Amino acid sequence: MINPVYRAMLSRKSVIRELSEYATARGKEIGYENVFDFSLGNPSVPAPASFAEAAVRLLRNEDPMRLHGYSPSVGDPDVKEKVARSLERRFGIPYQKEHIFPTSGAAGAIAHALRAVTETGDEVLVFAPYFPEYIPYINTTGAVMRSVPADTENFQINFDAAEQALTERVAAVLINTPNNPSGAVYTEETLRRLAELLRRKSAQYGRTIFLISDEPYREIVFDGKKQAYPASFYPHTLTCYSFSKSLSIPGERIGYVAVHPDCEGSDVLVPMMAQISRGIGHNCPSSLIQQAMAETVDDTSDLRVYETNMNLLYDTFTELGLRVVRPGGTFYIMPQALEEDSIAFCRKALKYDLVFVPADSFEAPGYFRAAYCLATEKVERSLDAIRRFVRETYGTR
Amino acid sequence: MINPVYRAMLSRKSVIRELSEYATARGKEIGYENVFDFSLGNPSVPAPASFAEAAVRLLRNEDPMRLHGYSPSVGDPDVKEKVARSLERRFGIPYQKEHIFPTSGAAGAIAHALRAVTETGDEVLVFAPYFPEYIPYINTTGAVMRSVPADTENFQINFDAAEQALTERVAAVLINTPNNPSGAVYTEETLRRLAELLRRKSAQYGRTIFLISDEPYREIVFDGKKQAYPASFYPHTLTCYSFSKSLSIPGERIGYVAVHPDCEGSDVLVPMMAQISRGIGHNCPSSLIQQAMAETVDDTSDLRVYETNMNLLYDTFTELGLRVVRPGGTFYIMPQALEEDSIAFCRKALKYDLVFVPADSFEAPGYFRAAYCLATEKVERSLDAIRRFVRETYGTR
Repeated sequence: MINPVYRAMLSRKSVIRELSEYATARGKEIGYENVFDFSLGNPSVPAPASFAEAAVRLLRNEDPMRLHGYSPSVGDPDVKEKVARSLERRFGIPYQKEHIFPTSGAAGAIAHALRAVTETGDEVLVFAPYFPEYIPYINTTGAVMRSVPADTENFQINFDAAEQALTERVAAVLINTPNNPSGAVYTEETLRRLAELLRRKSAQYGRTIFLISDEPYREIVFDGKKQAYPASFYPHTLTCYSFSKSLSIPGERIGYVAVHPDCEGSDVLVPMMAQISRGIGHNCPSSLIQQAMAETVDDTSDLRVYETNMNLLYDTFTELGLRVVRPGGTFYIMPQALEEDSIAFCRKALKYDLVFVPADSFEAPGYFRAAYCLATEKVERSLDAIRRFVRETYGTR
Repeated sequence: MINPVYRAMLSRKSVIRELSEYATARGKEIGYENVFDFSLGNPSVPAPASFAEAAVRLLRNEDPMRLHGYSPSVGDPDVKEKVARSLERRFGIPYQKEHIFPTSGAAGAIAHALRAVTETGDEVLVFAPYFPEYIPYINTTGAVMRSVPADTENFQINFDAAEQALTERVAAVLINTPNNPSGAVYTEETLRRLAELLRRKSAQYGRTIFLISDEPYREIVFDGKKQAYPASFYPHTLTCYSFSKSLSIPGERIGYVAVHPDCEGSDVLVPMMAQISRGIGHNCPSSLIQQAMAETVDDTSDLRVYETNMNLLYDTFTELGLRVVRPGGTFYIMPQALEEDSIAFCRKALKYDLVFVPADSFEAPGYFRAAYCLATEKVERSLDAIRRFVRETYGTR
């Protein structure tokens, strides 16, 4: 019999998909350049030339038996070493190659990290607003997702609610900073308080609560700042990274789990992830892509466009009187809608060819998300439509 | 807490690994070229030049945004179309792109196929001898593996035992032809009888029993023959393929599931596999590798070496009086050991620097597997060691 759980998932049509299909259809009518599609979180700048150059160099010069051969199940040792050295240079933590597990992007990283530090029935805590894919990521492992309501003041962490939610059943906490959908960058203060809370609760329950830190937007931080590195504050951290955004290669599916050298089980967690791989059919990312990534591990695309776009949107939303926390990074902004029902708000925006996503599925009801991974020229053209939409729909502001 | 199930998997040291470590250590003593390592099933011929050329062409000429961008979760439509057309050309089945799900190799393919057509508690039937990774592949889905004892006469299917084992609890049957470890190629007659059995049992139980056909060795068939295509005999077939062996690119992790157009649920199975992906973090193979594969979908490495090697070994084992079914394909041969305890047999072979694998873990106790994906020159040099080993250990033959 066909599996009924997965079959039922097909009929749940998401609002995001509906909006995205609308945008595509509308694009066919009026030209896609005239649809201001803020629905999709896809990088809008090309990969750095160095990535393709590294791949071509490998294809031209390497022995194909070595280049395309099986990676060890824990990942290519040279690749792991390069990632470890890069992390040590940048964050001062002495990772060894034994602490690095190359994965198919952040999704693959989180799939392994979750299975390594939870058991069936354990709870995994996330903080709203959160990427809705966390729900299947967590719930298909046998663990259960629990969410902590948002700190709507500044989209850091609602610590009063977190304190309540961190019961004995919680095996791991999954954070995402810089954050999709809010654009918030957790501050050092936030990460310090979180570490203190995890230490205190771990001591109280007599077992280590793990921190899984999902950081695909780590390199997209504004105002010349840097994202504080969560693992620096709490050793029991599995850092999940993807190069999808920093190198603009989301289709290549390359990332890693980095296990802090002082993490409980740091000697066994990577070999365990190789065992987990056997069951879920992961078995390492592409060897060519692993090696090309290792050659360009410290490069990034030209990411400045996202900050330019953020400022244009932030200033316009603010000028129009919307309540909005200024993003510290990512390519998302999440203002409060001008009516309680953000789905209605987003539907009305469609009349102006503005495609926003209601943030209800991110557990931020009443807010909407705009993904500004677009050419700045298009964002500039959208501003007039945003002004007309808000003024004509919600009165002069 | 660290997951105890995966942690426990670390301490189970496999005989294969132990032998492989011995071979590596011995290689450091006497030179690896003098160790006749028949333990590992890694392709020994390079990828066809066309694969690297296709990848370089894509990297040089394609828009990086398109080339490295997200694939749709069901896979790149152009890639799927090319795979469908290739399968139709070769096997006459009118696959559409909607029936093709690109995966990270055969492991990824089987992980998705199993989850799509089974539920927790269902049984999945395999036929001994079988690839031991099937155990974690199946058991981590929530289904339970059951095995049917081998047909030791010719390593086709033991139909009397299969008839017994195909109870109402069996949701799917997983076959592997050409077969690892036996090298057997299921004949048309075998596939016809299997299809008849599945039809009869499906009718009896009032539900479709699915066939999952794992075919990574499809292109390595000897004596100018072809592997009969299992899906041609039974429509409820999910064909799981990997290009690891045909293109000699095991590290690139590229394969597919092809759902027969007349399979029950053929309209929903691929979208369901995209849903399954969300939970296990698969999310498509590398986009570059998908596209390079599509350009070379009908190419293969020069695979003739495997047949040459097989004949050398088959003739030598036969000449020495070992009972051995002549392989029809793959790069494996599985003779009967000269004593009941094949582990003892393989340990004694080590004294002659011959590394064979006892087939106990393939559920063929008393047999051993030799993987002859080696340079022919090395296989030729091994023959004298094989002769000395057998004659000196088990008497003149």
